[in-house]
Amino acid sequence: MTKFDEATGAVRVDESTYDVCLDPGYSIGGPLNGGYLMAVLLRAVVDASPHEHPVTTGAHFLRAAEPGPARVRLEHLKAGRTVATTRATLVRDGVAFVEALVTTATLSGAAPDWTDVPSVVMPPVERCLRLPAPEPGSNMAFGAQVELAFDPPTIGWLGGAPTGRPEARAYFRMAEPQDPDPYVLALAVDALPPVIFSAGARGWAPTVDLTWHLRALPAPGLLTLLGGGRLIGDGWFDEEVEVWDSSGRLVAQSRQLARVGRG
Amino acid sequence: MTKFDEATGAVRVDESTYDVCLDPGYSIGGPLNGGYLMAVLLRAVVDASPHEHPVTTGAHFLRAAEPGPARVRLEHLKAGRTVATTRATLVRDGVAFVEALVTTATLSGAAPDWTDVPSVVMPPVERCLRLPAPEPGSNMAFGAQVELAFDPPTIGWLGGAPTGRPEARAYFRMAEPQDPDPYVLALAVDALPPVIFSAGARGWAPTVDLTWHLRALPAPGLLTLLGGGRLIGDGWFDEEVEVWDSSGRLVAQSRQLARVGRG
Repeated sequence: MTKFDEATGAVRVDESTYDVCLDPGYSIGGPLNGGYLMAVLLRAVVDASPHEHPVTTGAHFLRAAEPGPARVRLEHLKAGRTVATTRATLVRDGVAFVEALVTTATLSGAAPDWTDVPSVVMPPVERCLRLPAPEPGSNMAFGAQVELAFDPPTIGWLGGAPTGRPEARAYFRMAEPQDPDPYVLALAVDALPPVIFSAGARGWAPTVDLTWHLRALPAPGLLTLLGGGRLIGDGWFDEEVEVWDSSGRLVAQSRQLARVGRG
Repeated sequence: MTKFDEATGAVRVDESTYDVCLDPGYSIGGPLNGGYLMAVLLRAVVDASPHEHPVTTGAHFLRAAEPGPARVRLEHLKAGRTVATTRATLVRDGVAFVEALVTTATLSGAAPDWTDVPSVVMPPVERCLRLPAPEPGSNMAFGAQVELAFDPPTIGWLGGAPTGRPEARAYFRMAEPQDPDPYVLALAVDALPPVIFSAGARGWAPTVDLTWHLRALPAPGLLTLLGGGRLIGDGWFDEEVEVWDSSGRLVAQSRQLARVGRG
């Protein structure tokens, strides 16, 4: 069992209640990473489902969640032979922090009938850029959990050279060696810096909703995250992330709508 | 008030309950169109919200809904100064048919800070193809509510010449003249034939979830719907639709995950 498996563990109380302990290792400047919170919810949902895989997850982030004990409340909306749909709410002291609708099914691992290709060719990983790990005790603890190696232009904003368009691309793996699985993918789709940083924006960019689809079970090895966006305006931006596995298969797709920070 | 406004009307019973009457005019082979059902839910959500616009909607379709009286149950999850989040469930006889998480806000109409361009250039509308209206009494009544003029190759599957990839593109307006608004956009993002028809698949392709974002209030005039997909496999496909308005602005983005039909 990896630290990530432990940090996302959900302990069954009854068929609609799970106890969780939100891990400070996944905080970014205080609040916990949204992908981490989704992974916690999905552990409970899948444990209680007749099916094995969280095929589609639509999460709305209501309030910033801090580390510590919390509960996942499940409402079983549909349990069919092929798919089941569950509402999952992360609750502490009677207050809801994240609510998600999740449909589970069991993927077979069959080869795709049709697939598009990645929209961008990544440079080889040895030409990509890693950020320094956060100092011990930093409130950016999340950075120590994952390894990202960035396509250099898309991290240029850090040195004052944004590309001028919303984008972020990186190779990804867990810092503690672990084969990717659906919970790692839940983390991966929200692991990039906000794509608007590359368009010149700064500041905390709170996610309002994030929807992601598990399209296949990922092969072992590095994941490739391709992030972009279509429109920034009226205080909102969209962020799309595709996750491709080491065998060149599209394994996850996400889109989030987030608020532009006042940076 | 147009017929569409009437067909999507939601009558307040109390702050968390609305009565609706699902209109047979929006059925496709029996069940009601998913975009129509979202529009009905959104009428109730916005009526009960302190904000004016349904900025993001994530709907899971649990069971096929038939015409007739039903209720929308609301649960107010968060009511903030900038955004409010509501859970909306379409219920009949105690059974849930659709459940959605909706975040409302008020869009200003300001010009975008940054926008990408459409991924495809549409031919002029006079070179596009219209389908014959359904016969009166047909169970494909939905086709009489909207006018679609298709980019010809993307409707080639009807004549036995699919393009071989998931795609569908069309100009769109309501058959009864009406300026587009957020409820029309909810209909528009689910108004195209399933994109997999163009990849050679056939048969009823039930939507499991559809998430869409309202990015701007649409200008009067024709809408352009650009639909595509990235992967077909394991019995599932994704469908992305972008809606551009007559002024050339991206006004809505959607993605749905659906089951491949057994056609």
